[in-house]
Amino acid sequence: MVELPQVLVLRPVLLLKMFEKQFQSKFSFLKAWESPMPTTLFLKTHAQSVKAILCTAGTPITSDVLSHLPAVQLVVTENTGVDHIDLQECWRLKISVTNAATVFCEDVADMGVGMLLAVLRRICSDDRFLRGGLWPNSGDIPLGSKLGGKRVGIVGLGSIGSKVGKRLEAFGCNISYTSRKKKSETPYLFYPTVHELASNCNVLILCCSLTDQTRHMINKEVMAALGKEGIIINIGRGPIIDEKELVKCLLEGQIAGAGLDVFENEPYVPKELFGLENVVLSPHRAAFTEEAILNAFQLAVANLEAFFSGKPLLSPVINE
Amino acid sequence: MVELPQVLVLRPVLLLKMFEKQFQSKFSFLKAWESPMPTTLFLKTHAQSVKAILCTAGTPITSDVLSHLPAVQLVVTENTGVDHIDLQECWRLKISVTNAATVFCEDVADMGVGMLLAVLRRICSDDRFLRGGLWPNSGDIPLGSKLGGKRVGIVGLGSIGSKVGKRLEAFGCNISYTSRKKKSETPYLFYPTVHELASNCNVLILCCSLTDQTRHMINKEVMAALGKEGIIINIGRGPIIDEKELVKCLLEGQIAGAGLDVFENEPYVPKELFGLENVVLSPHRAAFTEEAILNAFQLAVANLEAFFSGKPLLSPVINE
Repeated sequence: MVELPQVLVLRPVLLLKMFEKQFQSKFSFLKAWESPMPTTLFLKTHAQSVKAILCTAGTPITSDVLSHLPAVQLVVTENTGVDHIDLQECWRLKISVTNAATVFCEDVADMGVGMLLAVLRRICSDDRFLRGGLWPNSGDIPLGSKLGGKRVGIVGLGSIGSKVGKRLEAFGCNISYTSRKKKSETPYLFYPTVHELASNCNVLILCCSLTDQTRHMINKEVMAALGKEGIIINIGRGPIIDEKELVKCLLEGQIAGAGLDVFENEPYVPKELFGLENVVLSPHRAAFTEEAILNAFQLAVANLEAFFSGKPLLSPVINE
Repeated sequence: MVELPQVLVLRPVLLLKMFEKQFQSKFSFLKAWESPMPTTLFLKTHAQSVKAILCTAGTPITSDVLSHLPAVQLVVTENTGVDHIDLQECWRLKISVTNAATVFCEDVADMGVGMLLAVLRRICSDDRFLRGGLWPNSGDIPLGSKLGGKRVGIVGLGSIGSKVGKRLEAFGCNISYTSRKKKSETPYLFYPTVHELASNCNVLILCCSLTDQTRHMINKEVMAALGKEGIIINIGRGPIIDEKELVKCLLEGQIAGAGLDVFENEPYVPKELFGLENVVLSPHRAAFTEEAILNAFQLAVANLEAFFSGKPLLSPVINE
């Protein structure tokens, strides 16, 4: 019997859970969380020869973890975002990293538009109103607000942000953006800073990745610039927003509403948000449809197979 | 002081409530529901000379009502749908009818897409999940389904249906439709019956008006043709669907989900739906945003002013 290539998994990974049988026909998984040993001891004992890691957002691949894994040459993450991986350390150690590339982009963009519609048109709060049996007794529910004509600012015009823009054009929105640099291939108006973008928009949609530059980029000042009629949609990463300030702005009516798929301390969501009707909350699911998860599984397998057979990786993260 | 033209109102009208001051500076309203008299007596006593009626969906303007109003020459409804008005009787009596024309079309189309995203991507049920504080204790929530690639069937490709199509194209949906007749100006595939459309689609979006032909058009057989993975969005009128069969199909899993802005006996919603996670419920609000309501008010005023000054009406309903 052929021995399967070993892959280390530190914490549960959605793809492995969903496609366990198919995965285990191709690779032998070393599951750290199933061992009674502390992780460090587990790594020292079992993982000295392992060459590949499969991981997910929320599983930190730090320099400390990597220091216990001298043979590792590849980190495969099931997500698009790679902020849980110490990329500098990977580059230093000549470890390759692959992500889910654009597999999830359409679904994340769809979710951004879906949450924006849900906030503007009160879809979730009206659904609660009906389920509470309140309709026959109270005709007085606030009106929603029209999506068409809204000035929407996209923060990060990458593969997700540009898809958000394409969708919102069909609704008649006026789209502008900020990004690390101005893009020549888009007709959307560019603002060099998120503060200027917020000052000129009714809606901000956060589509950027989490980096040292974007952490707490949406702060008190940006929210004040967006204003009392403003709405924030976050389909990026939680820490892009200063969450404490966001909660305060929402409670005090300094902004009009928010649609949040991501949070600073997942799975913990600030409880103050649970009572607000102008907020739509989602458990970091923007990327996760049945269709996209299947594509992500196929891509992860293809990357691991390419690596173990010495072929080029399909979706390497580039050291920019 | 100039005497203002009289306008009869049988039951509360949203526009009059929202823009009472502006409306009352231009017209004198006879409000039947504020009188202690029964409506018939009120009409006989006060409304013999009134020439115009302002009404809303759910206020039946029947031949009986009109028989008590010999001087009426105009019925203005604040809605786009005119199924509450006996049009044949109006034509016979040479009474003009105006509606909200296309004022609400974009918002209704937006709501159709918003509810479809909410059903497919579990936006409202995931919001409930988070507000219930369940996220930290349970990672196991079902995955949503991708909008892109879905075969969407539009029932009624009029001013709302075509706007739904335009929006869903941007999400990568495959769009087909049924309508009274095939339209030459659209690239979408035409099916002559709703049954054939349902057999070839994952999603049906009901955008048609309520007529004798469309009442209970979505019956058991159509839902069976749509199938267990199928989703129905109703932004038309409640009675287009056989609601009892719909509830049964949803409870038994004969279809996968529904987004319903309208119901057969509003404001009553079948209680069996309140416990379903694959359903999004909305209190007939698809049309009602602040922006559209303002436009509808301006149009209603313009129609009444045109009528009282002998000018052409702005949005007459045509006797086809």
